[in-house]
Amino acid sequence: MSEPAAFQSLAEGSYDEPFAGIRRYAAHGERATLLRYTFDPGAGFPSHHHPQEQITLVEAGELEFTLAGETRRVSKGDVVVVPPDVPHSARACFDVPASLLAVLSPRRDDIGAVSIVTSP
Amino acid sequence: MSEPAAFQSLAEGSYDEPFAGIRRYAAHGERATLLRYTFDPGAGFPSHHHPQEQITLVEAGELEFTLAGETRRVSKGDVVVVPPDVPHSARACFDVPASLLAVLSPRRDDIGAVSIVTSP
Repeated sequence: MSEPAAFQSLAEGSYDEPFAGIRRYAAHGERATLLRYTFDPGAGFPSHHHPQEQITLVEAGELEFTLAGETRRVSKGDVVVVPPDVPHSARACFDVPASLLAVLSPRRDDIGAVSIVTSP
Repeated sequence: MSEPAAFQSLAEGSYDEPFAGIRRYAAHGERATLLRYTFDPGAGFPSHHHPQEQITLVEAGELEFTLAGETRRVSKGDVVVVPPDVPHSARACFDVPASLLAVLSPRRDDIGAVSIVTSP
């Protein structure tokens, strides 16, 4: 793995669409990966898990976030800490778009290298 | 260190003021710490370094960010990856407030435990 660039951007460049209505932008350090997800209204990210810890921060909108079977409505400024290997999912409310940030540590090398779609 | 709470907030609750015009909110996981800094116009965070890697994301405003002696103007969506122990500083431009997020990994236990000021 090459050394991460000191100056990157989460606002431009490439993204992928892991699920319908969800775009994912990635920036990588050596130790952690910072992701921005944008959700169209009503878009959902199905339950999944990964070995990385995930610290999630809601940037805008409202979502239903389910962590280990417990669902809460979260909005701007709310943080959800997802321990390693714990199932979680998120769905944006139907009236407005939403966005959230996710810090994965250790870094997740499979995002940003596969299935990248260049931003129009 | 106790297990981090699953649901936290970066928008409310407690913060500290490490330097004049700069407020810092913290959320902790096991592996990483997520910080939000708000800068009054012109406020500056002097050069410093720490053993954690820092992934920085500008949320709003414009700042001059200096990394290892190189200064760049950064704005919303820009990312700066600060390797461990590399000196860095930031100053908000004089016309508008700014805010940025900083992901520190591994987690930084000395923030959020000392010098906390309760939000009014």
